[in-house]
Amino acid sequence: MADGAPRVERDGDVVRITMVRAARRNALSREHLTQLLAAVTEAGSTDATGIVLAAEGPVFSAGHDFADVAGKPVAEVRSLLLLCTELMQTLQDVPQVVLARVHALATAAGCQLVASCDLAVAAESAGFAAPGGKGGWFCHTPMVAIARNVGRKRAMELALTGDVIDAPTALDWGLVNRVVPDVELDAAVDDLMGRATRGSRASKAWGKQTMYAQLDRPERDAYTTAVEVMAAASQLDGAREGMAAFLDKRPPVWTD
Amino acid sequence: MADGAPRVERDGDVVRITMVRAARRNALSREHLTQLLAAVTEAGSTDATGIVLAAEGPVFSAGHDFADVAGKPVAEVRSLLLLCTELMQTLQDVPQVVLARVHALATAAGCQLVASCDLAVAAESAGFAAPGGKGGWFCHTPMVAIARNVGRKRAMELALTGDVIDAPTALDWGLVNRVVPDVELDAAVDDLMGRATRGSRASKAWGKQTMYAQLDRPERDAYTTAVEVMAAASQLDGAREGMAAFLDKRPPVWTD
Amino acid sequence: MADGAPRVERDGDVVRITMVRAARRNALSREHLTQLLAAVTEAGSTDATGIVLAAEGPVFSAGHDFADVAGKPVAEVRSLLLLCTELMQTLQDVPQVVLARVHALATAAGCQLVASCDLAVAAESAGFAAPGGKGGWFCHTPMVAIARNVGRKRAMELALTGDVIDAPTALDWGLVNRVVPDVELDAAVDDLMGRATRGSRASKAWGKQTMYAQLDRPERDAYTTAVEVMAAASQLDGAREGMAAFLDKRPPVWTD
Repeated sequence: MADGAPRVERDGDVVRITMVRAARRNALSREHLTQLLAAVTEAGSTDATGIVLAAEGPVFSAGHDFADVAGKPVAEVRSLLLLCTELMQTLQDVPQVVLARVHALATAAGCQLVASCDLAVAAESAGFAAPGGKGGWFCHTPMVAIARNVGRKRAMELALTGDVIDAPTALDWGLVNRVVPDVELDAAVDDLMGRATRGSRASKAWGKQTMYAQLDRPERDAYTTAVEVMAAASQLDGAREGMAAFLDKRPPVWTD
Repeated sequence: MADGAPRVERDGDVVRITMVRAARRNALSREHLTQLLAAVTEAGSTDATGIVLAAEGPVFSAGHDFADVAGKPVAEVRSLLLLCTELMQTLQDVPQVVLARVHALATAAGCQLVASCDLAVAAESAGFAAPGGKGGWFCHTPMVAIARNVGRKRAMELALTGDVIDAPTALDWGLVNRVVPDVELDAAVDDLMGRATRGSRASKAWGKQTMYAQLDRPERDAYTTAVEVMAAASQLDGAREGMAAFLDKRPPVWTD
Repeated sequence: MADGAPRVERDGDVVRITMVRAARRNALSREHLTQLLAAVTEAGSTDATGIVLAAEGPVFSAGHDFADVAGKPVAEVRSLLLLCTELMQTLQDVPQVVLARVHALATAAGCQLVASCDLAVAAESAGFAAPGGKGGWFCHTPMVAIARNVGRKRAMELALTGDVIDAPTALDWGLVNRVVPDVELDAAVDDLMGRATRGSRASKAWGKQTMYAQLDRPERDAYTTAVEVMAAASQLDGAREGMAAFLDKRPPVWTD
């Protein structure tokens, strides 16, 4: 494992990926993005049901490392952004439930990480911002993910002011699912992940992926996809078992 | 009327369609979907201005009846889901204002019914869930409608955990328009329906349908449609009367 | 300047455009729309960083002037709506941050103005409505903008009932960014505008425009645009300066 690579731990059915570059504020350098992408892809290929994305240090993640961008030609910046986008999309593509454990400040592409996870639990002392708006390099790609979690006026405010919102505001705006006292963060992460990973794994994986396929589409287009997937999904072992167990009034046993 | 068919009553300008299969938790069996679709379509062809979708019994609706799905081939499940989707779209297609009166738990396609109505009023003891996420058959099609009422992280939480949210949470997330004490449910339904059905019927019908045509589209595409419809709508009798009455400082008399 | 034309004032880096047709409730007549479009376009061509859209009188704006519509042929109404839509889109197209200062009631196309600005600050006594829903001419085009700021059920409620929501409700629903006591309105406008106009002007202008280009698109389409723009934007003087200053631990000096 390369120096500073994320720590990957498996606990039961959940893989925890922890950014450990505290001194670099867990900046998403090209190397770090590559490591995170590898870790998420690898976890995605296991039989785990959930992935927790966490971090150590005073900052959850400060986003891009300007040393990778300053003075670099456009082609190099473009490839960096494509790599970053691949990480964000992989968080949505893997079959596991992906939950961000946000213990501290998440800014720019660091905030995009939170916005791109399926679920997010934040400590009260966490904060969220897209600071490019008050600097020289606007948070164009982070705002793709962030804007899809909050309302339009709120997205514009985050993007244009670059100001930090606190965790309760992020909860109110729908950017995170839970806010808890800092000392209760792991318990809240475990609780929500436990709830989100119940049931048939195959059913859930297909369900998650169909959600992202339909969310931003016109409703009737979305139904066209969802009907076909849901019909096909009725043939999965898990669907058959779930329905049989319900009709037989017995607990289901998941095998997929 | 077939056994267990929804009760259809007209009170003034409002048709109330009540699911009465209390013992079956108002499950959306193929027969029940067919009856509901017929009732909504029939009400939609009348001169009523509003349709209330209500239910009796301990549950508003528990969604699909697993007896229709368990062990059935994909073609049969697909046709069931297409029928269900047709009902959901018909709630949006009819010219009347459609309001869900949610007195109790609404789950899966039952929650989709609420999400698909134009408006919803819930009793404090109501609840909402997409339980497929914790079972074996993910709520793919219900989440098309539900996700379009709540934010993305909240949609993922409902979809992945299958947990029930209470009525105040549904109000906070935008899934319903009002939450009132159970004993005030009918009064709140009448009040909101009264407000929502004022004015020219023809204008409102076109308005409702244009809303669904534009809601999920990019803003400029939406304007392309809305401008043409609004210009044409200015020629309706109701539009002429409304503007003439305003300019003449007299109450309007609606004839369309 | 034509009689009743908006007052245009520049204060530092901000242009304030104030509707002064108090006696006409700042109705958006063809003449007034033309004047507002000219004022916004002109302000957009200056080196100002922000535009405040304000109004005087008992009403912020009552929307279309029925005298322009009543009894007019469809072609004339259509051209009026196209002009109105052009104003709404120009608010989004200009490179400046555009902030609505809403001191009073904003209805129909007046509410659409608020919804179309990047940001909005409202006095406690402001109110918001799409009253066409209870009349004879549905607010088709206003709802394009309004619905993109609030949730779907809330959009349907505004559209169908025509009822006024108060400023705290508008804040809760995401239609405005701040609500303050009436006497603090200008201070709140100045504060938010100051925050929203920090940083490189060129970066912000591109950022704002990319936001509108991506907001309503499927996430992956949005990334396709945002990645290319953000890579190109890394080559701007402001981006280079911002990153260099950060890496050198000195304050940035914006020249673009």
